[in-house]
Amino acid sequence: MHPDAVQRVLGVLLMVFSVTMLPPALVAVVAADGVAEAFLMTFVLLLVLGGLLWLPVRQSRRELRIRDGFFVVAMFWVVLGAAGSLPLVIQNAVPFGFVDALFESVSGLTTTGATVLTGIDSLPLSIRYYRQQLQWLGGMGIIVLAVAILPMLGIGGMQLYRAELPGPVKDAKLTPRIAETAKALWYIYLGLTVVCALAYWAAGMGAFDAVMHAFTTIATGGFSTHDASMGYFDSALIEMIAVVFMIISALNYSLHFMAWRWRSTEPWRSDPELVAFLTVLGIVIALVLGGLLIYQAAHSLLLDETWHHAIFQVVSFATTTGYTTASYYVWPAFLPVLLLFVAVVGGCANSTSGGLKVVRILLLWRQGGREILRLIHPQAQIPVKIGDRPVNERVIDAVWGFFAAYVLLFVLLMLVMLAMGLDQITAFSAVASGLANLGPALGDVAANFASVGAGPKLVMCVAMLMGRLEIFTLLVLFTPAFWRR
Amino acid sequence: MHPDAVQRVLGVLLMVFSVTMLPPALVAVVAADGVAEAFLMTFVLLLVLGGLLWLPVRQSRRELRIRDGFFVVAMFWVVLGAAGSLPLVIQNAVPFGFVDALFESVSGLTTTGATVLTGIDSLPLSIRYYRQQLQWLGGMGIIVLAVAILPMLGIGGMQLYRAELPGPVKDAKLTPRIAETAKALWYIYLGLTVVCALAYWAAGMGAFDAVMHAFTTIATGGFSTHDASMGYFDSALIEMIAVVFMIISALNYSLHFMAWRWRSTEPWRSDPELVAFLTVLGIVIALVLGGLLIYQAAHSLLLDETWHHAIFQVVSFATTTGYTTASYYVWPAFLPVLLLFVAVVGGCANSTSGGLKVVRILLLWRQGGREILRLIHPQAQIPVKIGDRPVNERVIDAVWGFFAAYVLLFVLLMLVMLAMGLDQITAFSAVASGLANLGPALGDVAANFASVGAGPKLVMCVAMLMGRLEIFTLLVLFTPAFWRR
Ligand SMILES: [K+]
Ligand SMILES: [K+]
Repeated sequence: MHPDAVQRVLGVLLMVFSVTMLPPALVAVVAADGVAEAFLMTFVLLLVLGGLLWLPVRQSRRELRIRDGFFVVAMFWVVLGAAGSLPLVIQNAVPFGFVDALFESVSGLTTTGATVLTGIDSLPLSIRYYRQQLQWLGGMGIIVLAVAILPMLGIGGMQLYRAELPGPVKDAKLTPRIAETAKALWYIYLGLTVVCALAYWAAGMGAFDAVMHAFTTIATGGFSTHDASMGYFDSALIEMIAVVFMIISALNYSLHFMAWRWRSTEPWRSDPELVAFLTVLGIVIALVLGGLLIYQAAHSLLLDETWHHAIFQVVSFATTTGYTTASYYVWPAFLPVLLLFVAVVGGCANSTSGGLKVVRILLLWRQGGREILRLIHPQAQIPVKIGDRPVNERVIDAVWGFFAAYVLLFVLLMLVMLAMGLDQITAFSAVASGLANLGPALGDVAANFASVGAGPKLVMCVAMLMGRLEIFTLLVLFTPAFWRR
Repeated sequence: MHPDAVQRVLGVLLMVFSVTMLPPALVAVVAADGVAEAFLMTFVLLLVLGGLLWLPVRQSRRELRIRDGFFVVAMFWVVLGAAGSLPLVIQNAVPFGFVDALFESVSGLTTTGATVLTGIDSLPLSIRYYRQQLQWLGGMGIIVLAVAILPMLGIGGMQLYRAELPGPVKDAKLTPRIAETAKALWYIYLGLTVVCALAYWAAGMGAFDAVMHAFTTIATGGFSTHDASMGYFDSALIEMIAVVFMIISALNYSLHFMAWRWRSTEPWRSDPELVAFLTVLGIVIALVLGGLLIYQAAHSLLLDETWHHAIFQVVSFATTTGYTTASYYVWPAFLPVLLLFVAVVGGCANSTSGGLKVVRILLLWRQGGREILRLIHPQAQIPVKIGDRPVNERVIDAVWGFFAAYVLLFVLLMLVMLAMGLDQITAFSAVASGLANLGPALGDVAANFASVGAGPKLVMCVAMLMGRLEIFTLLVLFTPAFWRR
């Protein structure tokens, strides 16, 4: 660890983050909703705090190294998660305590989208804006984290993409070219947001709502400015626009980057993970549609426009966005659980979506196949391949490690939730949703997390952070070996 | 595949199994309960069927090879599972259909112990005897399967024990020394059963019940001759005797074999899996006891003799025996789910217990630790060790493959159960219990499986067989590569 370098980065981070309080402050002033003071106070607080951290070490020329990387990345979400809760705590007009504010902020920055709020439609406009912006910023952070930083840290097999990455990935030093990669990715991210907002607006959303939902669509975040989420607009066209942009955001941003730089669709067409993801989407949509039709026939119901509810809901879960239109939790028990498992699989690596990631499942599947072949041909040397490329054994090890840690953490957090008094379905679905950065769950927390106590909310914060940081980024900080010189 | 050799083995298997119909027939005659005819008809049927298979190929001198091994092992449980249901189908006095009979038989032979029966206390005596015997025979089969056959087939990392095994394990031919190993193991198994029965009897059980429960204790099966299971006897002494013998049966029988041959306790004392298993038992007992005491204090209850319920129930689940004394499913939600997860971990490898097996979890844990170290020291070569021995990377791969297959199968079977209309808790707990060969579950099937339809019962049969055959033994039969020449 180089404390100087870490301290410098944290200081800069807080100062930059403080600036993000100005747009909601502006919204508050324009809307005259009385929250401007809270945002401005937070701005000053964070700016001063960041400055105090930065000033003493501003001359330090030390570079960040791998080990510092884990610390800085973890701090990014933990410290900014706490910092993001400040306006909600300061603003007395919004009567919830620190735990609720922290939950909302962490849920925003990790692009989870679970909420403790009810009556969102009648909240001050600036707070409705602020939540959406938190997710959009979180999504930005994730893209850089996933594409430029995690592969370098070797987290959970994400070094799979090391060789082909447009970044500093073969370099032991962290800073040199991250800025350049980040800038290109942010242009793509911003561009997608603008196009998505225009499409929503053209389809009939109000301008404010169009931008607000573009923010959380591209971030696969799922926060909405309405309690009814996307169901508020009751429009198949808007839902299909959301479907398109949720899928784009759940694809590997390295592919978008290469397609843009090379002016070619080749990177998309030749990606095995993308093909697998779209195949799974197709199969699950067919299953859900079939399930709903059978259910309707059996109960002599005629649900209105089942087809777009099915498509929208599956894509919303599979991309771990978590918007809802239908009351999916009153569907027959099979379907919501299927949707939860699909969310646990998640989207593609290097995207804003959460979950295990399709490429990891693909890799586990391939290695499962190899194990069976090995049983039949014990002497054969059989490489595991993704596409045409054999995968390094060490990467496979890392993916197994991640998978086991995910399952273990799932069981552990679920038991803690149960011990805190939640029922089995609530505990199971909340942990699944939190770890996958999905948002919606089942049981007592199907609509929101307002009804559970402080304990389960804090456990959810841990789950969301662990999920977002691919577990090991946080886990490694708790090992003695990390702190040993 | 050598069809001749396989056919010969199956024929012999059926003829040997037919003989096991004679003891229950004898019980039926002595008790004059009217079921003798069903057992004798089954005896004749299976003897003739086995003979017809065996006769044409009795001269064949072909040896079984690895690939035939998978087929024979799978057939053992599938064919005998079906064969074992015959007396229950034939006997009209027991009014259940083929699916129920199959469920009961498979549950018996796989030592799962889930039942579709209610009113067990008032069943004909010979049927009460027959169920217990099925489990005892299943347990015998498992010991040989686990110690002598699976390691040779390379299933799920069980070749971990290849080097130290007292068997034909380095030989590509299956038959030569299996008989010798099997005989020694069966002496141990029989010896433990006799001692256990004497202990139960000395503690106050009737002679019949003592033998019957010794059968299913040593098999870690959990069938009982009473609806109330071990709770029927309401005796802390009997429960503690059961605890001792359940633990012994959940330990690695290779250790018992070596300890017996060497006249030494060294094999037990130096086994890392045994130490880990007992440690986990201790921790979970403490958690359950603590949980119950807090629950009682909070609800101003004074449950009678909590301590022995806690110890008995934890050991019963951790060894995947599945006896019950307390109504564990009305304990606060945290505890039954904890017990289920403990059962999913299961007992030690090469024992009669089910689940993932402690040694596999230990291995996954060690490799998880290695992955974290690799993040901090990317260049280091770090071996994974169990005890002092580094573990072959190929074995680790096999264990990961098994773990992933287990999780995937769990999710798949749970979704199928939900699609068949079971609620979430029932589906989750039934699949967990079936795959771990545990027996008890939660929700609608907390007491027994009488209330669910034929579909879920057949799914349970699949789960129980998959769990017992360590998944891959069955899975490999469904791959084209297996059948290719
Ligand atoms: K989300
Ligand atoms: K059992």
